[in-house]
Amino acid sequence: MTSQPRIGYGGDYNPEQWPRDVWDADYAAFALAGVDTVTLGVFAWAHLQPAEDRYDFTTLDAIVDRAAAEGVRIVLATPSGAMPPWLAHAYPDACRVDFEGRRHVYGQRHNACPSSPDFRRLSVALAGRLAERYGDNPAVVAWHVGNEYGGACWCPACGAAFRGWLRDRYGSLDRLNDAWNTAFWSHTFTDWAQVQPPNALSEHWRGPDHTAFQGITLDYRRFTSDALLGGFLAEKAAIRQHSAATPVTTNLMGLYQPVDYHRWAPHLDFAAWDNYPPEDRSSSRTAARMALAHGLVRGLRGGEPFWVMEQTPSVTASRDVNPVKRPGVLRLWSWQSVAHGADAVLYFQLRQSRGACEKYHGAVLDHAGRTDTRVFREVAALGAEFARVGDALLGGRTPARVALLVDWDSWWAVELSDGPNRNVRYLDVLTAYHRALWQANVPLDVVPVTADLSGYDVVVAPLLHLVKGDLAERVTALVEGGGTFVTTALSGRVDEYDNAFLADVPGPFASLLGLRVEETDAQRPDVVNPVTLFGTRHEARQVFEVVVPDDAQVLGTYGADFYAGTPAVTRAARGRGHAWYVATLLDDDGVAAVVRAALAGHGPVGPLGDVPDVEVTERVVADGTRYLFVLNHGPARTVPAPVDGEDLLTGRRLRTGEELDLAPTAVLVIRRA
Amino acid sequence: MTSQPRIGYGGDYNPEQWPRDVWDADYAAFALAGVDTVTLGVFAWAHLQPAEDRYDFTTLDAIVDRAAAEGVRIVLATPSGAMPPWLAHAYPDACRVDFEGRRHVYGQRHNACPSSPDFRRLSVALAGRLAERYGDNPAVVAWHVGNEYGGACWCPACGAAFRGWLRDRYGSLDRLNDAWNTAFWSHTFTDWAQVQPPNALSEHWRGPDHTAFQGITLDYRRFTSDALLGGFLAEKAAIRQHSAATPVTTNLMGLYQPVDYHRWAPHLDFAAWDNYPPEDRSSSRTAARMALAHGLVRGLRGGEPFWVMEQTPSVTASRDVNPVKRPGVLRLWSWQSVAHGADAVLYFQLRQSRGACEKYHGAVLDHAGRTDTRVFREVAALGAEFARVGDALLGGRTPARVALLVDWDSWWAVELSDGPNRNVRYLDVLTAYHRALWQANVPLDVVPVTADLSGYDVVVAPLLHLVKGDLAERVTALVEGGGTFVTTALSGRVDEYDNAFLADVPGPFASLLGLRVEETDAQRPDVVNPVTLFGTRHEARQVFEVVVPDDAQVLGTYGADFYAGTPAVTRAARGRGHAWYVATLLDDDGVAAVVRAALAGHGPVGPLGDVPDVEVTERVVADGTRYLFVLNHGPARTVPAPVDGEDLLTGRRLRTGEELDLAPTAVLVIRRA
Amino acid sequence: MTSQPRIGYGGDYNPEQWPRDVWDADYAAFALAGVDTVTLGVFAWAHLQPAEDRYDFTTLDAIVDRAAAEGVRIVLATPSGAMPPWLAHAYPDACRVDFEGRRHVYGQRHNACPSSPDFRRLSVALAGRLAERYGDNPAVVAWHVGNEYGGACWCPACGAAFRGWLRDRYGSLDRLNDAWNTAFWSHTFTDWAQVQPPNALSEHWRGPDHTAFQGITLDYRRFTSDALLGGFLAEKAAIRQHSAATPVTTNLMGLYQPVDYHRWAPHLDFAAWDNYPPEDRSSSRTAARMALAHGLVRGLRGGEPFWVMEQTPSVTASRDVNPVKRPGVLRLWSWQSVAHGADAVLYFQLRQSRGACEKYHGAVLDHAGRTDTRVFREVAALGAEFARVGDALLGGRTPARVALLVDWDSWWAVELSDGPNRNVRYLDVLTAYHRALWQANVPLDVVPVTADLSGYDVVVAPLLHLVKGDLAERVTALVEGGGTFVTTALSGRVDEYDNAFLADVPGPFASLLGLRVEETDAQRPDVVNPVTLFGTRHEARQVFEVVVPDDAQVLGTYGADFYAGTPAVTRAARGRGHAWYVATLLDDDGVAAVVRAALAGHGPVGPLGDVPDVEVTERVVADGTRYLFVLNHGPARTVPAPVDGEDLLTGRRLRTGEELDLAPTAVLVIRRA
Repeated sequence: MTSQPRIGYGGDYNPEQWPRDVWDADYAAFALAGVDTVTLGVFAWAHLQPAEDRYDFTTLDAIVDRAAAEGVRIVLATPSGAMPPWLAHAYPDACRVDFEGRRHVYGQRHNACPSSPDFRRLSVALAGRLAERYGDNPAVVAWHVGNEYGGACWCPACGAAFRGWLRDRYGSLDRLNDAWNTAFWSHTFTDWAQVQPPNALSEHWRGPDHTAFQGITLDYRRFTSDALLGGFLAEKAAIRQHSAATPVTTNLMGLYQPVDYHRWAPHLDFAAWDNYPPEDRSSSRTAARMALAHGLVRGLRGGEPFWVMEQTPSVTASRDVNPVKRPGVLRLWSWQSVAHGADAVLYFQLRQSRGACEKYHGAVLDHAGRTDTRVFREVAALGAEFARVGDALLGGRTPARVALLVDWDSWWAVELSDGPNRNVRYLDVLTAYHRALWQANVPLDVVPVTADLSGYDVVVAPLLHLVKGDLAERVTALVEGGGTFVTTALSGRVDEYDNAFLADVPGPFASLLGLRVEETDAQRPDVVNPVTLFGTRHEARQVFEVVVPDDAQVLGTYGADFYAGTPAVTRAARGRGHAWYVATLLDDDGVAAVVRAALAGHGPVGPLGDVPDVEVTERVVADGTRYLFVLNHGPARTVPAPVDGEDLLTGRRLRTGEELDLAPTAVLVIRRA
Repeated sequence: MTSQPRIGYGGDYNPEQWPRDVWDADYAAFALAGVDTVTLGVFAWAHLQPAEDRYDFTTLDAIVDRAAAEGVRIVLATPSGAMPPWLAHAYPDACRVDFEGRRHVYGQRHNACPSSPDFRRLSVALAGRLAERYGDNPAVVAWHVGNEYGGACWCPACGAAFRGWLRDRYGSLDRLNDAWNTAFWSHTFTDWAQVQPPNALSEHWRGPDHTAFQGITLDYRRFTSDALLGGFLAEKAAIRQHSAATPVTTNLMGLYQPVDYHRWAPHLDFAAWDNYPPEDRSSSRTAARMALAHGLVRGLRGGEPFWVMEQTPSVTASRDVNPVKRPGVLRLWSWQSVAHGADAVLYFQLRQSRGACEKYHGAVLDHAGRTDTRVFREVAALGAEFARVGDALLGGRTPARVALLVDWDSWWAVELSDGPNRNVRYLDVLTAYHRALWQANVPLDVVPVTADLSGYDVVVAPLLHLVKGDLAERVTALVEGGGTFVTTALSGRVDEYDNAFLADVPGPFASLLGLRVEETDAQRPDVVNPVTLFGTRHEARQVFEVVVPDDAQVLGTYGADFYAGTPAVTRAARGRGHAWYVATLLDDDGVAAVVRAALAGHGPVGPLGDVPDVEVTERVVADGTRYLFVLNHGPARTVPAPVDGEDLLTGRRLRTGEELDLAPTAVLVIRRA
Repeated sequence: MTSQPRIGYGGDYNPEQWPRDVWDADYAAFALAGVDTVTLGVFAWAHLQPAEDRYDFTTLDAIVDRAAAEGVRIVLATPSGAMPPWLAHAYPDACRVDFEGRRHVYGQRHNACPSSPDFRRLSVALAGRLAERYGDNPAVVAWHVGNEYGGACWCPACGAAFRGWLRDRYGSLDRLNDAWNTAFWSHTFTDWAQVQPPNALSEHWRGPDHTAFQGITLDYRRFTSDALLGGFLAEKAAIRQHSAATPVTTNLMGLYQPVDYHRWAPHLDFAAWDNYPPEDRSSSRTAARMALAHGLVRGLRGGEPFWVMEQTPSVTASRDVNPVKRPGVLRLWSWQSVAHGADAVLYFQLRQSRGACEKYHGAVLDHAGRTDTRVFREVAALGAEFARVGDALLGGRTPARVALLVDWDSWWAVELSDGPNRNVRYLDVLTAYHRALWQANVPLDVVPVTADLSGYDVVVAPLLHLVKGDLAERVTALVEGGGTFVTTALSGRVDEYDNAFLADVPGPFASLLGLRVEETDAQRPDVVNPVTLFGTRHEARQVFEVVVPDDAQVLGTYGADFYAGTPAVTRAARGRGHAWYVATLLDDDGVAAVVRAALAGHGPVGPLGDVPDVEVTERVVADGTRYLFVLNHGPARTVPAPVDGEDLLTGRRLRTGEELDLAPTAVLVIRRA
């Protein structure tokens, strides 16, 4: 990760689209706003390489020189997020074939087939040229490859690449046929050439989530994630030939289902993501969801600081309805980013686009270029706060004894599944359990299932539908060593190929949990079965597993239907720890009751963990100084100060327990005494 | 039809997908469950013919031998319901072109173009090989060709076959142009080659039900039904070369719109269908709907017994939400099948699939292979009841004096129609009239419009939109001979080519009914016009015909709108009988009032016909013994015993009128004294 | 425009589809109905030209002769609205490629690619032949080219034609790239050949309104409108070679988004449109919407009378639900057409089609050919009224001092826009402002933004999103000269290429309106912000602009959110006039308050302008006689007679202020004293 003098602040900047006199106005405004970082060159391909045999860096030279002269740090992008018309015209196969099987012609962005040799060759060559030219420039502090990698392609080249990927994975058709259970419906492949990308013309109906063969589609998603990563890696390698040390990253999209960021994580020099919550005002739900995404991104690189590469100063444009961020919200959410580990908070975009589909997307400078607007004032005030804080928080980490497991394979598998209930959404359940942890203000890591779990007290793993590798063994070791494990309905169902475990449900967790699931009932979303847990009635919905306990203790029971009185929530004692099972989908209060009880065995919850809407999180910097962030996502509220210390933003000194008035959107950054 | 020792019990079984030690466990469980029948080889094509030039019956030999050795009867399937990858790879034209005009590549099942010569050649060859090898095996009691025939194809080969089918039907383009009224919108065809399959790229918009030319689309549906039948017949012929006497069938899907089962009926040696109601608990609506489907299937072969070829022991997997069958429901619905004429009740599936889209579909044996589950216990208890009953019920028939007409042409035509109201669904109206008959427990035949009507007292024909052949004459003869005919709004509108009768509505029925329809008003589903009928107010919706009576007696009138006071229900006396017309779509009570009044002229309703939720039906076996089935689809209830006799399931003797306590899901099979 | 003896009455007639004896019955009925006009030959292509090298006018000769002999005036159509099968078969490229990129095969109608040279050649040749043969026939009073031009094509030929159109428009790629802001997302075109039609395979996602480049799609819509117009013009030119004076028109579709009728207007000899409101009963909303469409069509040709080329006597067939027109409604709406400037009111259709998708569409003569039905009686009664009125009203004009601006470019641009709110529909806002004007019974012109505004007192221009040409200057001149201008939120945003004005919002109107819009908030449709205006609370929704007034007077303010108390409605004094700005979308009452206040500065509203549901409009004929139409779209009501005069329909004499009882659907045509 690049070293920084302060929290990075600035954003995407496209001066090549504007005359020079606008540049002067821009830098004057940047100075007012405290901007110290610009991302250059995203989507500039046609500009940098107007024809296959012609590059033109004249303008970029001037742009880079100007930024350097202004003392602004540069994130230099490769422009492969959008290919130029000449490329698509010369190489039509560089365009994608969509899920419906249609070859696209030129248009939009993120439009290149990841398996196209021509696109690969040309994008890598340009990345190399950029690195060759600007790799030594000290103003360039990071490389930004491509943009928001995503989507998928189902073209013949991808089909061939998929077959190659499968050969590598399975070695033989026998293993492939076994993994995909092709004997079902007579799909036994007898030649690699028979394997087709799964889409609307082959295995799918009713869309990308409905497939005849879950195993095929699951592998195609893994392949797609890897194929996109292949483009990133090839560009990174070209950059590395000329720029040995400058960190390389790309802007991820947080809770984005199509790409398995855990497969990407080892290849990012630091993590970065684009934070676009659809909401316009602060609320616990929105805050928790952003916190989850921040945690996920921080978890990609073992807890290292990350960047928010994009956020909007006020409005988005791509949604059906695009509200403005309410006063104070930009500041609150920006500080929340820092509170969760961001060392830079950047905008898309610094100057508002003149035309096309993002012309109404918010920007630091609007079409009139005004600096006397509410939005600019808020941007500038935040820039001033970041400047004031300086380097104090940089590099700060957030030690945690609680982990939440996120797994793209389970996300994909449970939503691809035919039966028991297609209304179940992985993110709904994940966010419900996350929200309970977040409300408790407990320091939390959001980690993949392959993470080392040995250091945690509590591991929460909702909807762990697909279980791969030695996870069950590691979870068992955690529990036996005194830890607590919480999992839910629909977990432990399939192996990494999406084949059912030929054993009692929940498969590899059954003996740890001390029970078996005999039946799985599913009902429409409006059907409620009440679950009584610790004497309180909660509502359960969607999925109701009928559990036969072995030695698990029954903590909650169903209140209705033919399985009334049978277990809905259990806890098994194993070694020095406990393994919880929630056999249904509980409402928020029910989830909170389970999570609080699971945490309770390991000490009190976090600071202000019983105050609604108030988020508290901590970063510990290299010298051991601890900074506590207090963020009010709700209405005005008076709380006891959680620690002794001094608020970096106001200089106010606090003593533990003294009355602290929190206005809506209030932010404190307390250097603990 | 095959002779049987008892009610067939068992289901789909795919041991080729499992190691041999599982086979041992399977047969041990089958013995516990009373399984005596297995369906083998569905979807086994890739297994039986791994390459075009190679067949391999080794494993099937072992499977058949094992079943025979266990004394289990075999239904042997041809595997043409799903072609293997090598076939699609070698013959891409064997894959279908969909409604959107896209050629599919390999995937899913039921995926073969019915007009593909290569698919035809290869599927027929394999059917022949199977018959040659196993046709003499006494354990093979029936052939099961393909699987759940359905869907359609719009490829060039189907286009050519359609043109051939049209030449046969019309002889000349002049007749074709006249039948399709092509002069409208300048569609006059001057060369057969100009005729295209009607789909999203030609005559359709907004989907399969929106066509510019109803006549073209109607013929394409007939053609498709015949094209699929062509595959069945070709395989059957190949089987017959080696297996002269074993009955051949396939598994139909009940109330399935795309295929006209009345066109198929003459070619089935016995009828069979797959019963998958979406509901999880017993109710009158669900029971009535299954009864209608059973009746339809029994009506295909003149009332002969049929088989339920598939049902699930508990859950399905293919629906968005897949609930478990509540306790007692499997037994109730299985006995209902027998009550309506089933001589076998089989499951899909005996062992649960390991992977792919049906891995969560219910099975007699789950992934853990347990026999100590609720579902297995219910399966085994039912197997024991079937064993106890033995052959007593086999071959039993259900004589009826009331007929319900079902007509695929009308079903298609009324839902293809532009105007008056696309919200009208044929099945909604059909099931409403059926439900009224079912609630009356009146013995009922569900028959095509071509059936001999002369033996019936009452014929009910809702939404008889399209009228073909001599139907009007036969209905008139029925009425004049003393029968009662009931029909509804939107009947008598078009001829078999979907051209309007150039006459007063309802065309060929107008004079029989003694009225003309001058206008047809349509309103959105929430608009109600009250209809007063025999002094009671009912609600009418959707379609409101403005009737000008000739000599029909007005029994019900509209209560609102500019046609308030005009006729909504009429009855005309003709000869010794009556013809009823219901000029709108009445609510359930209104339909029941009409139906009960129509039945009243011919004696009392059936046993317990005034008790809600309790279904009573009868089978009469060859020696004249009559078995009365009493099925409680509602809550607990005490009713008078409807007959003297003895319940086969409990041995309890009953006297007419004595109090009979019916628990929920109760079943009695009373041998009448 | 053709001279007429009376209000034209009749409709589409296709005797070529019927035997000769039906013709006799038809003409007998026409006489009863007062029919004096028939439209012949629509969709008759296959009939007139059964093969490329063969024309056959035998039947049309007979049809024309018969009409002439009956004294019926003929509108002769060219049949290019539906090509024959032989044409599509010989020239597959004459079929369209749809938005999804799929080449269609033969089917439906309106199915020809407007850029197909073969279609163009053949359609023009046939138009020429028709003109050659019938151009001198005195019975032929007008030419009707094609039918309901619409839709679009995205085929390679259209791509090439689009590129040609762009070359003409932009001259150079540099200007094209600048206009489309292609630098955004690297779309800089370096060769004309790289430009592709924007559809689902290129720039679009989520359908025709979601595009990455609004400028490209906007130009493609303009191109499409022009391409369709090209077909019309080519046929018209061919007609003009043989028929120098007979007026040429086509049937437009009123408020139809895909075609910019203002681009067509100069080329129509008179305007005509098809009036198909979906409703079945009279109401103010429906009446106002029809009035708007009538006004739009009248405005195409500077206020000249137009024709209603089609309406249904009772039902449509193409809608999901097709109710019958209630008694009196046909008459009321037909007279409304005349009240707004129609000199002919024709039906689709005179005889009901036998088969295909319009067989249930209403007709003067139904399938039974009856003349004793309610619908026929209403048709005949109206025909008698028209006959009674004779030529009194013909050529009458409606002088107006108020104008409503309609602009297809703004309609397209605001609905293509990403941000701020996709739920905003141009027609919703346009009709709200129109309804307020309509309720005031103020004589109104509905005109394009290019119209001469100098003669108006008040100009209302809702959602003037795209501003082109010298409009802002002309509006400013209007205001400074004493006029009143009213515009709304989302106006003044983009130039004709859909690039944002690099200035304060609302761009060229900002200084006239005396304010700038600093932020644009958007909320879901259920969110209300109350706006207090002249002391009354109204509801605002969807879009809430935060306005910073310069010298505008604040008349209304927001009541909620962080911009509570800031301006929502303003008025700036400029010269002798005023410029109003409504910065949000108000409810109907709010819009009415603004509109009434704006009108108030220029005198009282129209006659009965305060009586709900009663429409009053006026036509002034050549000799200066003024006819006042009073139309009651609501319940029975007693009103003061608005003028002295005599009702042409009843002969009743009226004095101003005397009590006038208006039954529901009442119509008066008062010749003012």
